[in-house]
Amino acid sequence: MTARSCLSIVLAAGLGTRMKSDLPKVMHEVGGLPLVGHVLKALKEAGSDRISVVTGTDMPTLDQLVNKLAPTAQCHVQQDRLGTAHAALAAKPALEIETDDVLILFGDTPLVTPETVGRVRRALEDGADLVVLGFETGNPFGYGRLLTENDRLVAIREEKDATEAERQVTFCNSGIMGFAGQHALSLMEAIGNSNAKAEYYLTDAVEIANARGLKVVAVTGSEVETQGINTRAQLAACEADFQERMRLAAMDGGCTLLAPQTVFFSHDTRLEPDVVVEQNVVFGPGVKVATGARIRAFSHLEGASVGTGSVVGPYARLRPGAVLGADTRVGNFVEVKNATFGAGAKANHLSYIGDASVGSKSNIGAGTITCNYDGYLKHRTEIGAGSFVGSNSTLVAPVRLGNGVFVAAGSVITKDAQKDALTFGRSRQVVKDGGAKKLRDRLQAKKDAKS
Amino acid sequence: MTARSCLSIVLAAGLGTRMKSDLPKVMHEVGGLPLVGHVLKALKEAGSDRISVVTGTDMPTLDQLVNKLAPTAQCHVQQDRLGTAHAALAAKPALEIETDDVLILFGDTPLVTPETVGRVRRALEDGADLVVLGFETGNPFGYGRLLTENDRLVAIREEKDATEAERQVTFCNSGIMGFAGQHALSLMEAIGNSNAKAEYYLTDAVEIANARGLKVVAVTGSEVETQGINTRAQLAACEADFQERMRLAAMDGGCTLLAPQTVFFSHDTRLEPDVVVEQNVVFGPGVKVATGARIRAFSHLEGASVGTGSVVGPYARLRPGAVLGADTRVGNFVEVKNATFGAGAKANHLSYIGDASVGSKSNIGAGTITCNYDGYLKHRTEIGAGSFVGSNSTLVAPVRLGNGVFVAAGSVITKDAQKDALTFGRSRQVVKDGGAKKLRDRLQAKKDAKS
Amino acid sequence: MTARSCLSIVLAAGLGTRMKSDLPKVMHEVGGLPLVGHVLKALKEAGSDRISVVTGTDMPTLDQLVNKLAPTAQCHVQQDRLGTAHAALAAKPALEIETDDVLILFGDTPLVTPETVGRVRRALEDGADLVVLGFETGNPFGYGRLLTENDRLVAIREEKDATEAERQVTFCNSGIMGFAGQHALSLMEAIGNSNAKAEYYLTDAVEIANARGLKVVAVTGSEVETQGINTRAQLAACEADFQERMRLAAMDGGCTLLAPQTVFFSHDTRLEPDVVVEQNVVFGPGVKVATGARIRAFSHLEGASVGTGSVVGPYARLRPGAVLGADTRVGNFVEVKNATFGAGAKANHLSYIGDASVGSKSNIGAGTITCNYDGYLKHRTEIGAGSFVGSNSTLVAPVRLGNGVFVAAGSVITKDAQKDALTFGRSRQVVKDGGAKKLRDRLQAKKDAKS
Repeated sequence: MTARSCLSIVLAAGLGTRMKSDLPKVMHEVGGLPLVGHVLKALKEAGSDRISVVTGTDMPTLDQLVNKLAPTAQCHVQQDRLGTAHAALAAKPALEIETDDVLILFGDTPLVTPETVGRVRRALEDGADLVVLGFETGNPFGYGRLLTENDRLVAIREEKDATEAERQVTFCNSGIMGFAGQHALSLMEAIGNSNAKAEYYLTDAVEIANARGLKVVAVTGSEVETQGINTRAQLAACEADFQERMRLAAMDGGCTLLAPQTVFFSHDTRLEPDVVVEQNVVFGPGVKVATGARIRAFSHLEGASVGTGSVVGPYARLRPGAVLGADTRVGNFVEVKNATFGAGAKANHLSYIGDASVGSKSNIGAGTITCNYDGYLKHRTEIGAGSFVGSNSTLVAPVRLGNGVFVAAGSVITKDAQKDALTFGRSRQVVKDGGAKKLRDRLQAKKDAKS
Repeated sequence: MTARSCLSIVLAAGLGTRMKSDLPKVMHEVGGLPLVGHVLKALKEAGSDRISVVTGTDMPTLDQLVNKLAPTAQCHVQQDRLGTAHAALAAKPALEIETDDVLILFGDTPLVTPETVGRVRRALEDGADLVVLGFETGNPFGYGRLLTENDRLVAIREEKDATEAERQVTFCNSGIMGFAGQHALSLMEAIGNSNAKAEYYLTDAVEIANARGLKVVAVTGSEVETQGINTRAQLAACEADFQERMRLAAMDGGCTLLAPQTVFFSHDTRLEPDVVVEQNVVFGPGVKVATGARIRAFSHLEGASVGTGSVVGPYARLRPGAVLGADTRVGNFVEVKNATFGAGAKANHLSYIGDASVGSKSNIGAGTITCNYDGYLKHRTEIGAGSFVGSNSTLVAPVRLGNGVFVAAGSVITKDAQKDALTFGRSRQVVKDGGAKKLRDRLQAKKDAKS
Repeated sequence: MTARSCLSIVLAAGLGTRMKSDLPKVMHEVGGLPLVGHVLKALKEAGSDRISVVTGTDMPTLDQLVNKLAPTAQCHVQQDRLGTAHAALAAKPALEIETDDVLILFGDTPLVTPETVGRVRRALEDGADLVVLGFETGNPFGYGRLLTENDRLVAIREEKDATEAERQVTFCNSGIMGFAGQHALSLMEAIGNSNAKAEYYLTDAVEIANARGLKVVAVTGSEVETQGINTRAQLAACEADFQERMRLAAMDGGCTLLAPQTVFFSHDTRLEPDVVVEQNVVFGPGVKVATGARIRAFSHLEGASVGTGSVVGPYARLRPGAVLGADTRVGNFVEVKNATFGAGAKANHLSYIGDASVGSKSNIGAGTITCNYDGYLKHRTEIGAGSFVGSNSTLVAPVRLGNGVFVAAGSVITKDAQKDALTFGRSRQVVKDGGAKKLRDRLQAKKDAKS
């Protein structure tokens, strides 16, 4: 990576009215991360040491979000919406600090890769004064065409101004640009607004820089990574592109996805080789799965870690703080939240294990519920190693069971039990011969009376 | 909408043998509504004041279905299956009543839109005596071609009779037609059966009408909406087209679908703007979701209403009569049936809440079951506001808990409890130190004896 | 089927390093069956009486698998990896036994059909001495082209050796071959290794056979069935092709799949006509479903049988040994394992029924758990006909309930109950008026103290 200094300005003030949403456009999510978060992540990976985000006057929640995602980034408010150059100049205080590279990106173009950002920077390092990121497309209609001659970008031609020959050009403007730091502010401030909408367009910098005899070039990215998002349908299409990228990466890394198009990743999902993922699995943010584990169909994981050789699902839900050791089993209709499972521990059926620790090789019976909440505070359930919790048991936290404890099925457990204790809390069964017949007669009579 | 009177005849007597089904073809469903139901719905929206459905002799269940879906529609039985004109004439009693527009549609063409039906009617209003609905296709092979001259439809040419030039025509016959009321019966009755199969074909009306010097025109619909269904594969393809239509409409309306192709709608699903629908969600008939609600992955809703700001799922099942107020939570492996949740009420884990009311801000613990059925009658469970039902509780209906009641975890509740009462029904826990070890020794001995 | 004898040699020694897996490549699965298993199955259906599988030195688990899948098949170890001819000759002992047809197939080409294998055999029967299976493709780049003249295969031309004209050929080599038994060994042993990699290639047999004046021909298969698998992405693509095949077959057979692309079959799934399968259903190995049954959304079945008219799901999990009679119901969040349901029996909500029998028309209440495991042995629960098990009951096996037994909700059942008995095992409920308020005050005080 280059040692050059770099200021990146991310334009994120767009209202996104076509989204029909109360949420600022760049706060909508792809892969569980807000759109602007993808751009910030790519910039960090591409080594941008300073980041400025330009937001709108009416987006307090966006400022907070940027702060959380990139604490060193600076937010600048664009007072009016008068075009991209006007937006970039909202970051003028940042532009006044000397820097080698100045990049302009968009908060609603989440799939741009660090490699592509690096290509723009390399062009600056190689002596360009202005760099425009272009892409090749089969469908150039509506895009500004990049007109090049001998490795120089001579103009960006808008659809409406293009000649018939220029309309045939398939190399188009993504909007993403790089400026040599020494010219950035000067070029931006030279941009005027003599156009139909009286707005200031960054693309005009190309004409101005060429007029000044500066070196203007275009570099190429892929069409997918340069697509912006303006509607919910485009958001869905972008999500699909992102998922495709993640699925291919997982398979390249040696994972089997039985039906890749039914597996949904978050931006930060980490799967080791030889993990098998069955059909219809959703990975929310913060999940890692170790080698040899199998995530069975219809499972949903968030903020969880799965140990090597473990089997999760079908229909398992791992919530944040679920930490499963090696060779564990979490089966159908089981929810695990903020709980650790030691190696070989099992909870195979219809259970809720929250705020708990389950010792190694312990077995949690079907229908077990940890009662971790009393309406006011959360409490912990601790179960030692080699314990056996009988089916349909209720463990009322705070409660501790030592190693090797046996809880009889159907018990309500409120008191601790020490190592190797047997404990139960249930009523004696009573059998009344012939009682069901009498009951049925009575119920039938009631039903008859009703109808 | 036009004020003209309109009789629509829906041909639905087809056996559909290629479906390999005991069910009449038009009773198969798309988007949770029988095929013929879609046509009836489109006709009502297009303002058809009279509807006749032509059924077969062996389809009593179809007559009942039509009656239910469109109580004012009339069914006519086609005694033999001698072609489309013969089928239409089964509705002769309806045709004998004076009307402005007569439309012919097919019970197995469910995606026809009210807009397209309106276009056929407008052509009649504009003076046409006979209107044929056509569609443009990239693959005309096998279809009857619509041959037009100066805005007139001069002929429908079947594949086998077409010249090489006519085979290049891509404007094809959908079968859907409109007749000026004054000519309808006369034209249909003039149709003969001098053809290979000795059947009466409605398409012959074009030649007859032209011979009489009547005005015959074609109007254009989309290929998707005019596709008929003859096989299960075509049924599945039609369902896919329908879902695509619904997904785009939802996104246009301001909803986020994380993975649109995994969300399945019914014909009547209503989502307000800023609803987020995660992956793998199925909407059965009769669902509405208010703005700001989030339907999480793997949820299944039927006949349910979800209040603003609520979160449903993952893995939540809302069945008919589930009415969730604002800001409610229904979480994983929870089934709600015929039950209301007041604002802010929660049932987050592994519960069955049926025939019940849950007061606002009440919290239903994990594993709670309402026992609403005694084998004979269903009974209600009523829970007041601000109550707390401990985990793994069993609420045996009929039972009423007042506001602010606290049910201890693991209780079986059969009696009412008044406002602010604490109630429990569970056994004291007994702990036998060392008892688990003894039990294990005994069980191990048993196991050894077996093997 | 031909009466000719047939030896099939399946090459399965490939390391599959691009899979990045510890598992031998041909042991990866498609449709729940290892790749090599598909080939063995197709060969059996095509009437191959002897099968030899060539494995690598380092694949003991593969030998075991072949043994299990095809007990009469013989495994031969290829000591070094010196090309396909070298691999085939690892089966020399088998080749030395007189046979009519000798086929060469690949363990990583699972979609080859018995029909196509039969076509290769028919060519041998018709007098060919050597047969190569080819396929037509739109994308021939990289494949060996099959050059034919007057129904004879004159050469296989590799990409790098091809003239511009030969590169236009779209008929390509699948690698699958048939040899007349009398020439097989002689041809294979004549193959040399004078090539860049110094390996022995079976394709060289074409040149040698032609030089000997033998009759060499090509037959045609589909591109899909001749694709080999080298990466996880190709494995996923193959799985998708396989699923497509199964879905079309199911619909052709008269089943409705609401969303075919979301239904996943195993190689041996059997659905009768008029079965309806809703969205997102996974069929693991060993499932059969009788006519008129409906498998609702989000269901997962393995080793299970579903009776006519039954409704399974949504969210039902049937595990191996689940045998449902006619008109049964297994509903949401219910797991059934190694258990039989008599006609009309129901378990509609949140239950685990394992190692059990449920008599006809019995009703299992919500939240019922059979405790079949004591940590050492599994025990059975037997429930008679017409019984009613109240919600949230715990049935501790071994236990037997006769016909017409009524178990009160919330009971723990450890003892048998005879016909028509009423039985319960739960505590009396206590209500303390005002107790909840006191408790809340105490909990609030605790919470305040903590913060």
